[in-house]
Amino acid sequence: MRMSDLIMKKRDGGALDRDEIRWMIEGYTKGDIPDYQMSAMCMAIYFKGMTPDETFELTMAMLDSGDKIDLSGINGVKADKHSTGGVGDKTSLLLCPMVAACGVKMAKLSGRGLGHTGGTIDKLESFPGFSVEMSEEAFIKQVNEVGFAIAGQTADLCPADKKLYALRDVTATVASMPLIVSSILCKKLAVGADVIVLDVKCGSGAFMQTEDDAFALARALTDVGRRAGKKVVAVVTDMDEPLGVTVGNAIEVHEALATLRGEYRGELMELCLVLGTQILRESGVAADDDAARAMLEHAVESGAALEKFAAFVKAQGGDPAAVYDPKKLILAPVCLDVKADRAGYVRRIQAEDVGLVSMHLGGGRAAKGDSIDPGVGLALGKKVGDPVAVGDVLATIFARTEEAGEKAVEMLRDCYEISAEKVERGPFVKGVVK
Amino acid sequence: MRMSDLIMKKRDGGALDRDEIRWMIEGYTKGDIPDYQMSAMCMAIYFKGMTPDETFELTMAMLDSGDKIDLSGINGVKADKHSTGGVGDKTSLLLCPMVAACGVKMAKLSGRGLGHTGGTIDKLESFPGFSVEMSEEAFIKQVNEVGFAIAGQTADLCPADKKLYALRDVTATVASMPLIVSSILCKKLAVGADVIVLDVKCGSGAFMQTEDDAFALARALTDVGRRAGKKVVAVVTDMDEPLGVTVGNAIEVHEALATLRGEYRGELMELCLVLGTQILRESGVAADDDAARAMLEHAVESGAALEKFAAFVKAQGGDPAAVYDPKKLILAPVCLDVKADRAGYVRRIQAEDVGLVSMHLGGGRAAKGDSIDPGVGLALGKKVGDPVAVGDVLATIFARTEEAGEKAVEMLRDCYEISAEKVERGPFVKGVVK
Repeated sequence: MRMSDLIMKKRDGGALDRDEIRWMIEGYTKGDIPDYQMSAMCMAIYFKGMTPDETFELTMAMLDSGDKIDLSGINGVKADKHSTGGVGDKTSLLLCPMVAACGVKMAKLSGRGLGHTGGTIDKLESFPGFSVEMSEEAFIKQVNEVGFAIAGQTADLCPADKKLYALRDVTATVASMPLIVSSILCKKLAVGADVIVLDVKCGSGAFMQTEDDAFALARALTDVGRRAGKKVVAVVTDMDEPLGVTVGNAIEVHEALATLRGEYRGELMELCLVLGTQILRESGVAADDDAARAMLEHAVESGAALEKFAAFVKAQGGDPAAVYDPKKLILAPVCLDVKADRAGYVRRIQAEDVGLVSMHLGGGRAAKGDSIDPGVGLALGKKVGDPVAVGDVLATIFARTEEAGEKAVEMLRDCYEISAEKVERGPFVKGVVK
Repeated sequence: MRMSDLIMKKRDGGALDRDEIRWMIEGYTKGDIPDYQMSAMCMAIYFKGMTPDETFELTMAMLDSGDKIDLSGINGVKADKHSTGGVGDKTSLLLCPMVAACGVKMAKLSGRGLGHTGGTIDKLESFPGFSVEMSEEAFIKQVNEVGFAIAGQTADLCPADKKLYALRDVTATVASMPLIVSSILCKKLAVGADVIVLDVKCGSGAFMQTEDDAFALARALTDVGRRAGKKVVAVVTDMDEPLGVTVGNAIEVHEALATLRGEYRGELMELCLVLGTQILRESGVAADDDAARAMLEHAVESGAALEKFAAFVKAQGGDPAAVYDPKKLILAPVCLDVKADRAGYVRRIQAEDVGLVSMHLGGGRAAKGDSIDPGVGLALGKKVGDPVAVGDVLATIFARTEEAGEKAVEMLRDCYEISAEKVERGPFVKGVVK
């Protein structure tokens, strides 16, 4: 087999078979196939796509390129959740304790990643003493005892994907549906949950900008997941503005806890209820969607979900008192309001640009190994559809210095688009693909 | 500037500007831009093409990546010729002396290359003592005195093209019109002739398989050449069967000499007359095509072209007696006939497959540095359209060993397609693009 022949086949619109795909991924992982051939292949795939069969085989080949986590020591149904990424996404912080309180185990491995804010584990490290480092045995023990655990990834899962993603990132070949699908799913399959729920974001702050693209991705993900023998559901949700009302690290934990305490309800709780409903139904612990939703609502109202969260923080070495006393999660000292300079209605809040404000404040990571400032961030006082009067607080900035804060105020004001006419918000959950 | 942004721009159908193209080619030549980004760019260009402006700028950037030959020491008009490559192409061996005999200088640099037979300089080395190694001064002196010279390339012409072509070769991105155009022309521009005639082959044995593609390539080549300030004409010719009646090295020199001596006339002489006509007309030494053709015919009939050839061989250290006494160019000893096993008319001779027969015999070079056997090769007794009776000699093989020869006989027989119906040959010269 010659890689140049496979590239030509794909370039001319042909479908690669199982043997060809496995040969290619094994060779690339070992270094026998050079980056320059793989990047040409990725660009050919960008233009010519892949059949469902090819996408499935690519996913399985990448899965088989590395270690797999053995979750067989966990009793009962294991669920996992993945989001295609967005600004202000703290969903895992609520969803895991809610689902665990309903009796379904969540075993999550998380990376630090690059982005406008830290990843889930960076956010959790806002709790003094909290650690994501644990052995596989300790991880499984905690999931069994507490109901969920969120650990840093140490096993060598899907090295083919790591290598391929880094290559795609610098060769303008990230935005290819089959490559996205295989990259997401190989990692989820390597962790090995029985039920996988996928939150596919859609809109200006997301990878898939249109609903059509988002639903196509959702369908492709569930198709490949099912072929791999998993129960997979994808939920398409809005990312035209940031998710919820905070963007940062400690500040997102504040929002997650306030929401779990029932202090307010917005799209964030709605998203967790919808995602959790899929998990409970597919896991078989709820007979239907209504029953599942009622169980999740009860887990929040009864305080059971918050208790799960406290037990989780304690199990991983953090101070559970902070779960009940938010002041222990310290925000940056310079607090500045962004005030509206015109009246009307919020038409749009550019999610991507809000992410850049967080980045500017020091809340994100541009390169691997960068440190992040857990205390900086922002809270949105107005969301899309809200009426605004001149002088109203649109948002509040939490910065480390006056200088950084003042720049952030200007940046964030520019993220807001105010229109004279009343603005109707579209539905937050666009649909569920089973 | 970031290469990933340029790849994305091209991927999305944008046009790169002059600065972007120069930055990219300079960076790639120096090694600042890695192969894996350039191969993704080549695949994006494969799918999205390039505008005439982009193709021109790419050509000029590759031209400027290396040395240029200074031909200003040569008196009068300098012409050059390039063929897109085919099987049995010994055109330069006839065209150079014919044109030189009419007063236009030909200064040719040639590589050894890879392929089914050696390159022009390998063929010339069939003359005992012949050398293509000479200083730039000696080269210019010979062109002035003899009228033409064919030297090996020593200057570092277009290193960007060398690097890029090697990359394209293993990433299935050779077959892209703007990449082909820039690769051909940058090298011709680096040599610096005033008049450039391009022989664009078309058919099963050529890079461009259809007439439409061949004419599109011809138009793109003349367009870029003209923008670069040169007189460029492209001639589209048939390569559905091998050119002429021989394929090999010494054996192709035999055919070239026999044709120059007027012993027979076929498409090879016709091609040289058409190409030469373009050169004489564009050089201004002939008023029109008819006058140019008459001059070239006279150069052959009078023996002036053959004399030029002998002077050229002598000037480069070879034995000019071999020009008049073909037996001095020794062919391989095992001579086997390929006989027809059915009657009819020759419908097709698969040029590419005939090339593989030459390769099998040892007449070509698969890897850089391979040695070639100048004596092996084959002569075609029947060409497309010829009537054939059972037992007629279709072709003759010249092999080094019986074993190699017998295999070649079988291979060559398979190249011939014989049909019961009479076969009409299409025109050999498909058109001229000025």
